[in-house]
Amino acid sequence: MRWSKYYLPTLKEHPAEAEVVSHRLLMRAGMIRKLTSGIYTYLPLGLRCLDKIARIVREEMNRAGALEVFMPMVQPADLWKESGRWVVYGKELLRIQDRHGRDYCLGPTHEEVITDLIRGEIRSYRQLPVNLYQIQTKYRDEIRPRFGLMRGREFIMKDAYSFDRDDEGADASYRAMYDAYMRTFTRFGMVFRAVEADSGAIGGSFSHEFMVLASTGEDTIAVCTACDFAANLEKAEAVLRGVGDETQAPPMEQVATPDKHTVEDVAEFLGVEPARILKTLLYEVDGRPVAAVIRGDRELNEIKLKNVLDANELNLATPEQVQAWTKAPVGFAGPVDLHVDAIWADREVGMSRDWISGANLPDTHLRHVDPARDAVIAGYVDLRQVTAEDPCPRCGAALQLPKGIEVGHVFKLGTKYSEAMGARYLDENGKEQLIIMGCYGIGVSRIMAACLEQNNDENGALFPPPIAPFQIELILLNSKNQELLAQATALHDRLEAMGFEVLLDDRDERPGVKFKDADLIGLPGQLILGEKGLARGVLEAKNRKTGERTELALEDLETHVRQWWQGILKDWGLDEGKAS
Amino acid sequence: MRWSKYYLPTLKEHPAEAEVVSHRLLMRAGMIRKLTSGIYTYLPLGLRCLDKIARIVREEMNRAGALEVFMPMVQPADLWKESGRWVVYGKELLRIQDRHGRDYCLGPTHEEVITDLIRGEIRSYRQLPVNLYQIQTKYRDEIRPRFGLMRGREFIMKDAYSFDRDDEGADASYRAMYDAYMRTFTRFGMVFRAVEADSGAIGGSFSHEFMVLASTGEDTIAVCTACDFAANLEKAEAVLRGVGDETQAPPMEQVATPDKHTVEDVAEFLGVEPARILKTLLYEVDGRPVAAVIRGDRELNEIKLKNVLDANELNLATPEQVQAWTKAPVGFAGPVDLHVDAIWADREVGMSRDWISGANLPDTHLRHVDPARDAVIAGYVDLRQVTAEDPCPRCGAALQLPKGIEVGHVFKLGTKYSEAMGARYLDENGKEQLIIMGCYGIGVSRIMAACLEQNNDENGALFPPPIAPFQIELILLNSKNQELLAQATALHDRLEAMGFEVLLDDRDERPGVKFKDADLIGLPGQLILGEKGLARGVLEAKNRKTGERTELALEDLETHVRQWWQGILKDWGLDEGKAS
Repeated sequence: MRWSKYYLPTLKEHPAEAEVVSHRLLMRAGMIRKLTSGIYTYLPLGLRCLDKIARIVREEMNRAGALEVFMPMVQPADLWKESGRWVVYGKELLRIQDRHGRDYCLGPTHEEVITDLIRGEIRSYRQLPVNLYQIQTKYRDEIRPRFGLMRGREFIMKDAYSFDRDDEGADASYRAMYDAYMRTFTRFGMVFRAVEADSGAIGGSFSHEFMVLASTGEDTIAVCTACDFAANLEKAEAVLRGVGDETQAPPMEQVATPDKHTVEDVAEFLGVEPARILKTLLYEVDGRPVAAVIRGDRELNEIKLKNVLDANELNLATPEQVQAWTKAPVGFAGPVDLHVDAIWADREVGMSRDWISGANLPDTHLRHVDPARDAVIAGYVDLRQVTAEDPCPRCGAALQLPKGIEVGHVFKLGTKYSEAMGARYLDENGKEQLIIMGCYGIGVSRIMAACLEQNNDENGALFPPPIAPFQIELILLNSKNQELLAQATALHDRLEAMGFEVLLDDRDERPGVKFKDADLIGLPGQLILGEKGLARGVLEAKNRKTGERTELALEDLETHVRQWWQGILKDWGLDEGKAS
Repeated sequence: MRWSKYYLPTLKEHPAEAEVVSHRLLMRAGMIRKLTSGIYTYLPLGLRCLDKIARIVREEMNRAGALEVFMPMVQPADLWKESGRWVVYGKELLRIQDRHGRDYCLGPTHEEVITDLIRGEIRSYRQLPVNLYQIQTKYRDEIRPRFGLMRGREFIMKDAYSFDRDDEGADASYRAMYDAYMRTFTRFGMVFRAVEADSGAIGGSFSHEFMVLASTGEDTIAVCTACDFAANLEKAEAVLRGVGDETQAPPMEQVATPDKHTVEDVAEFLGVEPARILKTLLYEVDGRPVAAVIRGDRELNEIKLKNVLDANELNLATPEQVQAWTKAPVGFAGPVDLHVDAIWADREVGMSRDWISGANLPDTHLRHVDPARDAVIAGYVDLRQVTAEDPCPRCGAALQLPKGIEVGHVFKLGTKYSEAMGARYLDENGKEQLIIMGCYGIGVSRIMAACLEQNNDENGALFPPPIAPFQIELILLNSKNQELLAQATALHDRLEAMGFEVLLDDRDERPGVKFKDADLIGLPGQLILGEKGLARGVLEAKNRKTGERTELALEDLETHVRQWWQGILKDWGLDEGKAS
């Protein structure tokens, strides 16, 4: 492709609205343009990248035996009422009416539509299993769309839905999708992790998220440095550490702690380690007061607490609620004589029988608190957030806590939709059974953003070869020199004949502008064609990721280009087979 | 692909709701399923066909230098207010509100969005021309969606938009698109015509429709049997025929015609040819009464009349209006002493000076009417519908009037949107100029339906090879015979290695069911693998279009299959190059 015939409007300045690096780069590199809040047009360069992502997804879904369909965007309300989600889904579901006043929504997901399709067609166990997928535009009416393609309103998803006769089949379908996702994300050329995800109200361990690692990610995950353990923080079990102290504490005693509201203040004032102090956190859980007690130097993971309580809603108590429940201001709560619905303690709290805690009195703490003796603890459970100091719960090796961006999710749905919507089949004995479902999403447009959050430098994007819009940018230094232009065009054609996708910058611009733009759009390989190099019989080549510059002899150029390209693939951790 | 692993639910019965053959076949062949009125899911077989259509469209658009983008479906109302269409577009534009109460619509077309994109980026004549296209789901809130994919609410379009500096450039862009459409529709393997279309309020001849010919089509077109003239009926000029009669008529006289309301009745009653009688039609045109006069044996083309009057709305007068305007019931109107805003006559009316017409009195006609002498005629213009008896207006050869289905439209927009939305550029002299636009649509999903309206028989679909979901169906007669199944699978793989897309019917069904389904889904080639044939060293082969059966020797099978396939292509009017 010749740039002069292409539609690739790069921007010199950072767009003011773009808060994150991927949004800035996608705008500056002429890949997307905003139509309205959270809704973007994909320009030719952006669409090429999107198509490459979609093609890899499609190939791996097909390889896994999933079959591609294409479902509508406008969905009738009746189906959502059947599943119960018309009410539950909240305002992200954009509800609309047609000219006749009938209710519809713009699909943010397609469980209802696919279940409706299947229940009309699948009658016998002989027709199962089936796995249908689509790549399609979805709409989610985000209250505050932001970060460009990271959290938009219109976005492109691959969503697959599996249908099985029994749990064994459903688990096999899940595994096949998990494996397909591993192949897919590996092929993208990005660093990613499959992590065990919080399975929320569904139960079971059949939920994994696929995270692209990036320092700017919104999620933190726990990854083992030795084994293959990787999990969401709420799913990463905190290992009990240190030695328990079973020594019976002396009787409790009050101690004055005037104005010492924080664990650190109390620890310093009393001359003890924060680890000797109990931190008592108060929550309103589905409308009722609940306390959670952890060691003073630990952080509570609220999702762990929520899962323990099987709660729908959990909010930290307001200062007014703390005052009402403890008869003391914030900072003096403790588990002794605390009148709440239930007091849950982290397992570490049970390792010692001699703690300091708030006294539920202003400016007062208690020494020698033995939770088992002095408080009513509903249970000792895993509540604390793991840290980089924690060992892997599986193998004991060191953990890392990198940031990640969720770009995929596999999920065993079970019978939630087949039961609500009556998707049944007749088994071998002619008995009606519910179909077991799974759902499997990949954020196709989000991957384009996540890719740039992970791969960029101060000069612009760094596209991994498998999803780069073109593989090579051929930079012609002086487009006014007709002879040089002819040579550049011939070279462009030769490289394309070799199987490369090539963007030839033949614009009438200064070399400085071209170099800047080439780094900005970040194609993996740059080849520079100038008069001086030609005179010496060489092309200058630059590996965008490493910045490494080399010269390729024009004689036997194909061989040199191939070697150079293999070096680039290697720097991306890809062999040639994977990059195509 | 093995049918047993595929999702291809064929139906034995015609779905009751399907009124047209394409709808019936798409449903029965397991290609689409209805979600709700006018909204369909594409099942795997249907999506394959759709993808093939889209791929051909894409290849030819790219070849013509158009660049693919992807625009949003949800569009802000503000842009439609700028263009003026928020009000004008009517109820087919589905207006929606987001959670914040802001107005949007679901895009039925993208002139506003693309003009908004371009006006933000194009500043200089150096950036022009540009032609951007997309293949995307659109929504049109049809009052009565019907005929399956022929007139749905959600449908898939290719829409392209060209931007040029001047009329010369815009005309070249138009021509390039016209040529690309000719290549595209030729490659589909369907019989089609590019016809000059009514250009409505825009003016100029820069509008062509692409029609797939089918006896079930809603449109009639005029096609020359000799030259390349082809036009919509409203665009096909009626040639003056016969010899004019300049003989001055005797004075007018009234003649009683009791209860003779129709031309035929009057002609019979008076013993003259209908061609001697004037038919006077009354219309309400933008609120005012207008009369149109044509020869009694002719049909008026209302769009021709509308174009002559440059009218927005034109409705045949009600019986009450006829009574009020002519002082007589329907059937006795005539141009003499008729008090309407204007009387327009077809050019044939000027060829004679002695006519019979209604007298604007009950049960009365006039003899010896000379329009020039006895009536006030605003003008003699082309108003009548051409018929199969008319000669080609261009070369005089015979015309045909086949039915067609519109599947593409190219249109020179001019400055309608660039003016309304301020899309300008600076020319070589630094002067601001309006961008000249064109728009070019192809109904991608509609083509799938039109293809079946044109190509079917009583047993099912006949897919042209270039857009058939698979090219060959391999029918295994007895799937329970494991040895045969292994041979069928090997044969399937051999055919795929030859470059064919093959559907292997390995279901555990009777041969009769398989033959019926094979004819129903209508892949161009059928190969039948049975024990008897194998014993004789042959495969039975069937050309679905012609029904021709042959036997292909297993020895040197590749050669025989290739010959057979070339015969199929030939029967479709395709050479091998075109069909891939």
